[in-house]
Amino acid sequence: MKEYLKHHEWQIIEEGFDPHVNKISESVFSIGNGRMGQRANFEEDYSGETLRGSYVAGVYYPDKTRVGWWKNGYPEYFAKVLNAPNWIGLHISIDNQKLDLAKCKVENFKRVLDMKVGLLSRSFAATLPDGKKVQVESKRFCSMANGELGAIRYAITPLNFSAKTTLSIYVDADVVNKDSNYDEKFWEEVHKEATPGKAIVTAQTKKTLFHVTTGMVYTIESEGKKVSIDRTNVEQREKFAGNVVQFELAEGKETVIYKYGAVLSSENHPKDKLVAACHKVLDEALVNGFDALLDAHIKVWEHKWEECDITIEGDVAAQQGIRFNIFQLTQTYTGEDERLNIGPKGFTGEKYGGSTYWDTEAYCLPFYLSTAEQKVARNLLIYRYKHLPKAIENAQKLGFKNGAAFYPFVTMNGEECHNEWEITFEEIHRTSAMAYAIRDYVHYTGDENYLCEYGLEVLIGISRFWAQRVNWSADKNKYVILGVTGPNEYENNVNNNWYTNYLGAWTLRFTLYAIEYVRKADGPRLTEIVSNTSFNEKDETAKWKDIVEKMYYPEDPKRGVILQQDGFLDKELLRVSDLKKEERPLNQKWSWDRILRSCFIKQADVLQGLYLFEDDFDIETVRKNFDFYEPMTVHESSLSPCVHVILASKLGYKKQAYDFYLRTARLDLDDYNNDTEEGCHITSMAGTWMSVVKGFGGMKVKDGKLHFNPFIPDQWKSYSFRLEFRGRVLKLKISKDGVETKLESGSPLTIVLKGEEVALK
Amino acid sequence: MKEYLKHHEWQIIEEGFDPHVNKISESVFSIGNGRMGQRANFEEDYSGETLRGSYVAGVYYPDKTRVGWWKNGYPEYFAKVLNAPNWIGLHISIDNQKLDLAKCKVENFKRVLDMKVGLLSRSFAATLPDGKKVQVESKRFCSMANGELGAIRYAITPLNFSAKTTLSIYVDADVVNKDSNYDEKFWEEVHKEATPGKAIVTAQTKKTLFHVTTGMVYTIESEGKKVSIDRTNVEQREKFAGNVVQFELAEGKETVIYKYGAVLSSENHPKDKLVAACHKVLDEALVNGFDALLDAHIKVWEHKWEECDITIEGDVAAQQGIRFNIFQLTQTYTGEDERLNIGPKGFTGEKYGGSTYWDTEAYCLPFYLSTAEQKVARNLLIYRYKHLPKAIENAQKLGFKNGAAFYPFVTMNGEECHNEWEITFEEIHRTSAMAYAIRDYVHYTGDENYLCEYGLEVLIGISRFWAQRVNWSADKNKYVILGVTGPNEYENNVNNNWYTNYLGAWTLRFTLYAIEYVRKADGPRLTEIVSNTSFNEKDETAKWKDIVEKMYYPEDPKRGVILQQDGFLDKELLRVSDLKKEERPLNQKWSWDRILRSCFIKQADVLQGLYLFEDDFDIETVRKNFDFYEPMTVHESSLSPCVHVILASKLGYKKQAYDFYLRTARLDLDDYNNDTEEGCHITSMAGTWMSVVKGFGGMKVKDGKLHFNPFIPDQWKSYSFRLEFRGRVLKLKISKDGVETKLESGSPLTIVLKGEEVALK
Repeated sequence: MKEYLKHHEWQIIEEGFDPHVNKISESVFSIGNGRMGQRANFEEDYSGETLRGSYVAGVYYPDKTRVGWWKNGYPEYFAKVLNAPNWIGLHISIDNQKLDLAKCKVENFKRVLDMKVGLLSRSFAATLPDGKKVQVESKRFCSMANGELGAIRYAITPLNFSAKTTLSIYVDADVVNKDSNYDEKFWEEVHKEATPGKAIVTAQTKKTLFHVTTGMVYTIESEGKKVSIDRTNVEQREKFAGNVVQFELAEGKETVIYKYGAVLSSENHPKDKLVAACHKVLDEALVNGFDALLDAHIKVWEHKWEECDITIEGDVAAQQGIRFNIFQLTQTYTGEDERLNIGPKGFTGEKYGGSTYWDTEAYCLPFYLSTAEQKVARNLLIYRYKHLPKAIENAQKLGFKNGAAFYPFVTMNGEECHNEWEITFEEIHRTSAMAYAIRDYVHYTGDENYLCEYGLEVLIGISRFWAQRVNWSADKNKYVILGVTGPNEYENNVNNNWYTNYLGAWTLRFTLYAIEYVRKADGPRLTEIVSNTSFNEKDETAKWKDIVEKMYYPEDPKRGVILQQDGFLDKELLRVSDLKKEERPLNQKWSWDRILRSCFIKQADVLQGLYLFEDDFDIETVRKNFDFYEPMTVHESSLSPCVHVILASKLGYKKQAYDFYLRTARLDLDDYNNDTEEGCHITSMAGTWMSVVKGFGGMKVKDGKLHFNPFIPDQWKSYSFRLEFRGRVLKLKISKDGVETKLESGSPLTIVLKGEEVALK
Repeated sequence: MKEYLKHHEWQIIEEGFDPHVNKISESVFSIGNGRMGQRANFEEDYSGETLRGSYVAGVYYPDKTRVGWWKNGYPEYFAKVLNAPNWIGLHISIDNQKLDLAKCKVENFKRVLDMKVGLLSRSFAATLPDGKKVQVESKRFCSMANGELGAIRYAITPLNFSAKTTLSIYVDADVVNKDSNYDEKFWEEVHKEATPGKAIVTAQTKKTLFHVTTGMVYTIESEGKKVSIDRTNVEQREKFAGNVVQFELAEGKETVIYKYGAVLSSENHPKDKLVAACHKVLDEALVNGFDALLDAHIKVWEHKWEECDITIEGDVAAQQGIRFNIFQLTQTYTGEDERLNIGPKGFTGEKYGGSTYWDTEAYCLPFYLSTAEQKVARNLLIYRYKHLPKAIENAQKLGFKNGAAFYPFVTMNGEECHNEWEITFEEIHRTSAMAYAIRDYVHYTGDENYLCEYGLEVLIGISRFWAQRVNWSADKNKYVILGVTGPNEYENNVNNNWYTNYLGAWTLRFTLYAIEYVRKADGPRLTEIVSNTSFNEKDETAKWKDIVEKMYYPEDPKRGVILQQDGFLDKELLRVSDLKKEERPLNQKWSWDRILRSCFIKQADVLQGLYLFEDDFDIETVRKNFDFYEPMTVHESSLSPCVHVILASKLGYKKQAYDFYLRTARLDLDDYNNDTEEGCHITSMAGTWMSVVKGFGGMKVKDGKLHFNPFIPDQWKSYSFRLEFRGRVLKLKISKDGVETKLESGSPLTIVLKGEEVALK
């Protein structure tokens, strides 16, 4: 855990230049706009430790898998988030010395991410090896108003000299991925052009053949006027195009480089129109200029914050934490493009390749349901609807038939691209995360028509999977589910993981409900679905009902707890507090076999089920299971603490709830898990939002009504959040004195506050 | 399954040239001498499908592992059997046309492996593209009389022309491994020299820095006289040295190239003496000449066959099968060097990297115990004794302490070099294969003093492992062993695999026995061992006794069978006969998850235990378990059928026993598993020997006495085998009429034949 960042309500602030934390800061200060983004790399050269990364949404590379022994059913590739062409770079030479912070004396270094306006700034004074000292101020944003545009204002002031300066300003597609299985480069050049003032490169990805066109234009000004340029040369190399410009820097005078970058992909333009479209974006940017572009960008952020801000009074660290989480989520996924999803690292790193995990449905959806227009959450659902044929293919590859749908664990285009058998083949609960998301969406929005439009087809596919995946145990006289990995990935190939069994049976029940709903709401549509899916309603639903009725659920009647899986009680039941400090984190200190046979739990498993199906279990059941499992839980997944905040809140375990909250909210800011340098934990950030709203706020939807059961951590004066709910906008402020509720817009609404109905107007 | 090889009692014969089976033949016709060997590659160039492979015992490369997600505790490398420098090659150009069977019309092709004398021969008539036709006859052997020497007699007769011929005769270390994780070459040049008539290359392996010196000398003769050479040039390239010789081939006249190869490794010579030693081997070979060298080689084979031949009358396929197995085993491991072991592919291929698996102890040891001098089996045991410190290190890496010994699953030098967690970390029964081998050796030879010398130290280490690996289940009130893979590798991470639990507890019992034995036999030695191993006898043995007493064994009282593991009865209990043909073999047709959760068994698991501990279980227990498990067994490991022959024989299931026998005996000859092209299944060949002797012959040792309970398959007229046992040589011939026993040498011996004592003189 590191705590080098200043606490501030709206800003992330790093003061002083410490190369050892640079990669962490590069992650934390990342900026993006849903379409593109990048790590907070320096614009100028930097020869110190850095992970350069620019990313374009939806553009990936299917890297040849690297496995030991091939197992039948493995996918052929592991999709990689691509380090995309670099549009931010500037090589600066002053009197033939490179500006490179690794080789300068650096003073007054300050890096600020202003989350309110989505602006990354940096300032420093650098003394070059020969004693020349320059002051640099840079500002950068990826425009939320135009997803294909980014802009940089880079100002240099010589403090003790005047000198000739050479600037190489460029776009560069000759970039590498750190996460490359065989050290390949993934981009090939398609087109490049450079004229004085402008440069464009189109590169294509190998295999997937995505085209990405990256361009830049620039102006160099001083005191509001263009500076006089000694010479401009165009510069072209393999996958690289730019200008080399020479001009004078005058002592004490600020010279400003405005660089506008355009990043366009063939996902959004025909390949043969990309270059023309890029010219257009660049030319317009030049006309508008930095300040106007920034204004438009800020306006979007103002609107976003209006929708989703959470305020916390009396605890700046907690306030900064929640805003950081909301900021990153918002700039990762805007919900405008139903082909996109929420990558586990967003635009902050390459790790975990692939874009979509069950994280989206289980952790992110509630955030978007409550803070964005309905279509955002709906687009997340439709993303999976569109992948249904691939999910059916995926199931077929593993021997399932008759339209069974097995959604992949990690995907880019609906195909599985994860290669560890214990996850790929066995962590099957993820396929029902798609079913649960449909239920969640319908419950929250009331848009039950979604079941007719898209939902039921997906549910039938998933239910067919479960009906084939269970088997009858003659020994138990029950249906069982063998050989699975539950959410707790510190167990593999277990039998009857309770969470999986419960979720599987629940999916069947929910699908049976959805069939009846569609029958009543839109009979002809049901007929159509039955025909499209070759659904043998009578036989298939009879089997499903039988499974629902006779599903096996492991439990320990003596302790009155649910059992995570068969045989769990054979383990030595230790507590995390029995572990020595030097044994943590287990995944770095213990061998895999030892982790597997221990009782220690990576993330909520039984408790994940009790959280998702909270109305199915009484509070005493929740308490007994929480008291049994939480002490064995090491929370070595970023997705773990938030579920525990919610349950601890429900149980009145205020201190624990607050501790878990801080852990999830400041996970990346304080580098809790010592891995933020690889990127931020984007999907778990939605869990932070849930921690406040569903945890402390006790929000849930039941029978179409919003319920709240809020409490306030002792450390806070007040907190408030805003929800969109079925056409209304609702604000809650919880303080020591009580709860203020306000209906900001929309028709009257009755909510349930601490068990009492309250009518809001 | 393919059946293209002719049946013959002593020979393997391929007639006609079929490029599609060439790689299979290259495996089957492999030759070796315990120190070196190679696939039956052609001497001359061949541009068709081939897997070139020469191998040097004990020389390996630790290839960087290739895994998906790194798991803590994984070894850093996977040892690779190295394709070693090639000493057999000849490039032959006749009138500027290469002799290359892929580009010639080939007639009368015949490849013969004469197992009686260990000689590989090949003959063919080849028509070159321009119509020139040559007859070639080649003979090759790796000398059993000198493990560093090989020889080739390569005779060419022009059938319809006379012409100038260019021969490039060489040694070449610029060879590649097929099994290379990152397409690296593993050899670097250290030294080379070439003079007219001789060439030597010393190459070293990267990382491991083994030096291998490979040299050759040659003569070219016709009608017993040296042919006149037009020109001899020396030829040197990177890692390559040879001569280029020009001479005339005269129509109808045989010209013979004698090439002698020497292969010496730094395992047997100081590095700076290798080249000199190589010269010596080569010079002596030239003096002796091909015929004398072959004579010396044949003499060794005569002696070997005397020791270990099995004859079968009335069934040529079965006779050929058993001889092939014995031949391959004998040329793979001679038992002279206690640093060596029996690689799963011997000198026939690269697959499975590493040299040593538990196969050695569980399958190969009995063969060497019965057919070779005692020191051969003893050397196999000492090999593991020498690895004890590494086994202790290996255990430490996984969190075990206090001298616990965990032998690796695959090893070259005692370190683990296998990288699949379900095997590396979980298939823990292999560590007790070392304990069982000690018991087997002591039982068979009566050499109980081995316990004092080496055995007890190993046993204490292994017992310490088990004592730490079990855990107390409060739920079961028993010791349990969680998270293991049993011999049936179609199950992973199961709890309480019966075989593992039984073997673990047995090891503790046997170690307790061994302690008492050593105390009585050599008290001071026990004191020494106690001190060397920091053995806390009182506490440690108390714990061991407790575990022995309270170990948990899963069973099904209803069916009266042992359970392979906890939860086995939750599976759908199908039979192999329920599977469709196109679903087999499962490991190629089913996804891994489906295999894991099915009941289907790769190789004997419970039955492996009933075979190893046959005297602990009554015949009814064996029958019930065989009848329950065998029908679920797919025998997709080459190690499976032999155990089933033995048990089926015991149960009087004659037809099944014979069918299993043919499957194991002709596995490679008939390419049962469609994988012989990668190399032969060397370790399972010992299982074939066991099938006859322990299966049909019903041989076992009990209370120091040899027992036999033979029967004869209906298809056979008679079979006979020879055993060495405690200084005697014993021969049994079983025919339809009865059993003939003969004591060929040694003092009188009482054996037990079908339950009756028989005194042999």
